[in-house]
Amino acid sequence: MSEEKANQYQLPQQVAITNSSAKTFENWFEYPVWAQPHHTDYAGIVWHGNYLAWMEEARVECLRSVGINFADLVALGCDLPVVDLSIRYHRSLQLGMPAVVKTRMRELNGVRINWEYAIESPDRQELYVTAQVSLVALDRERGKIMRQLPATVQDALAKISYK
Amino acid sequence: MSEEKANQYQLPQQVAITNSSAKTFENWFEYPVWAQPHHTDYAGIVWHGNYLAWMEEARVECLRSVGINFADLVALGCDLPVVDLSIRYHRSLQLGMPAVVKTRMRELNGVRINWEYAIESPDRQELYVTAQVSLVALDRERGKIMRQLPATVQDALAKISYK
Amino acid sequence: MSEEKANQYQLPQQVAITNSSAKTFENWFEYPVWAQPHHTDYAGIVWHGNYLAWMEEARVECLRSVGINFADLVALGCDLPVVDLSIRYHRSLQLGMPAVVKTRMRELNGVRINWEYAIESPDRQELYVTAQVSLVALDRERGKIMRQLPATVQDALAKISYK
Amino acid sequence: MSEEKANQYQLPQQVAITNSSAKTFENWFEYPVWAQPHHTDYAGIVWHGNYLAWMEEARVECLRSVGINFADLVALGCDLPVVDLSIRYHRSLQLGMPAVVKTRMRELNGVRINWEYAIESPDRQELYVTAQVSLVALDRERGKIMRQLPATVQDALAKISYK
Repeated sequence: MSEEKANQYQLPQQVAITNSSAKTFENWFEYPVWAQPHHTDYAGIVWHGNYLAWMEEARVECLRSVGINFADLVALGCDLPVVDLSIRYHRSLQLGMPAVVKTRMRELNGVRINWEYAIESPDRQELYVTAQVSLVALDRERGKIMRQLPATVQDALAKISYK
Repeated sequence: MSEEKANQYQLPQQVAITNSSAKTFENWFEYPVWAQPHHTDYAGIVWHGNYLAWMEEARVECLRSVGINFADLVALGCDLPVVDLSIRYHRSLQLGMPAVVKTRMRELNGVRINWEYAIESPDRQELYVTAQVSLVALDRERGKIMRQLPATVQDALAKISYK
Repeated sequence: MSEEKANQYQLPQQVAITNSSAKTFENWFEYPVWAQPHHTDYAGIVWHGNYLAWMEEARVECLRSVGINFADLVALGCDLPVVDLSIRYHRSLQLGMPAVVKTRMRELNGVRINWEYAIESPDRQELYVTAQVSLVALDRERGKIMRQLPATVQDALAKISYK
Repeated sequence: MSEEKANQYQLPQQVAITNSSAKTFENWFEYPVWAQPHHTDYAGIVWHGNYLAWMEEARVECLRSVGINFADLVALGCDLPVVDLSIRYHRSLQLGMPAVVKTRMRELNGVRINWEYAIESPDRQELYVTAQVSLVALDRERGKIMRQLPATVQDALAKISYK
């Protein structure tokens, strides 16, 4: 078996992504990653669940870039659990390959924050993954969804709203 | 802070699932799990990415139940990578809680196999997660999507088709 | 490359384990596992860090078997963090292979609990991993090591002491 | 319960590490990490098994720094599986905290490569973890331990030998 070929599988009919206008590719926060041994599975490629960890890391670092320290937010009683997630795997990422996790806040809908993702090769020529993730603001003390976002979070998110 | 409350958050507006007819709840394969310490995150609940591991385990065991040994399939040159996945988190699962991962093949569309999932409490009174996962059959040697499923796979999947 | 051969590597000089007396192999708690796709790495074998998750699961289930519900213990303010761990990898475990995680409490030294492990094939003919893990009882409220174990824990552990 | 206190537990009797001479702290390769949400467990601290992933990443990047691309090595038929590992947890690392994974090759013994680790706070005032890891060079084709390291690996490792 040719392991190299197997690892480079591609799903041609799915490469088209819907959000391809010029405007859409502005305002991305970029987070570099490498496919380390522990990310891979028996096929020599990144195991499909591990992209969620990278996506979370990119989101946390994006928030940090606008002044929101996620650990502080949690300590203050506000959590941001994922409530909805969809992900499409366009092309596999092999052991040792670098990639860029691009993320941005797509929409703020009350206490619901929608993010979108594109994971690409460093030269932007290959698209590995596209995804959408929705978070809600949760009052940790009461165990309930907040009525509105904390003001500091709202202000910070306004900075990364790309619309 | 009340950790217990925080852990029991619920997203009431999302509990409704679309696939709720009597027929829909037939033919599920059930795979029991426990929320072990390594599955949890800082909030004392199962980290959202870990459900994908449980879902994969349930899928592998469901295939085994109809005679498909996944490792054998891979050794024979056929892989079944995930190409599309969507997941909704209705309610959190806390450290130490048992659950049942219910899965079934929803549709076989050429070489694309669509599965659906519901993760519930053992008494079926709580719904934690619903999800859909699509796989395609990949020729490992050539690194390309197969034109058709291997006959043995096709026959085995016919046994778990619930329609 | 022969993937099968690569996956069956063995480290002959390390197969000898020190705890091989007849007595030593009594009183094991046994926890069955399967090498699922998400456990494997690029070499088609279980990634070395994933054994720690299995070992923790086996420990939690062993405690449950003598009446200690780990989540309850944590809720009551007592945690049992790992403070020391050593592990030897004798032979690799491939995708799809079943194994048995054998564990037992080796020693109770004040608030320090020492466990030992052997991960074997179901027929006990192959030894994959041996390990030792030390836990201490931690007062979660005060963030300090306890002076003594809670009485219920002490009593329960007495049941699994094999000496 | 005070979550903050619980998270800051410390094991005073174990903080002393043996390798504390001036010479010992030379020649470390340093790899920065952050405790992201997916690294934590119910106690709000990094789950003990996740340090192994960081240690592997640091090792891979250290090898890259002297010209060994791990994925290339694997493609050429040489794997470096972990055969022995011991780790001591001195102090917990909480959600959101940065740390530095320090690693260096301690000894090259035939085809066995011994590494040591210290995971510290960025200001080097706190020690979280110390560890030792042994790898062996494995011929992937034959599934056997190599008689000697490939010359390129040997030469590269000579650059990071600190003795």
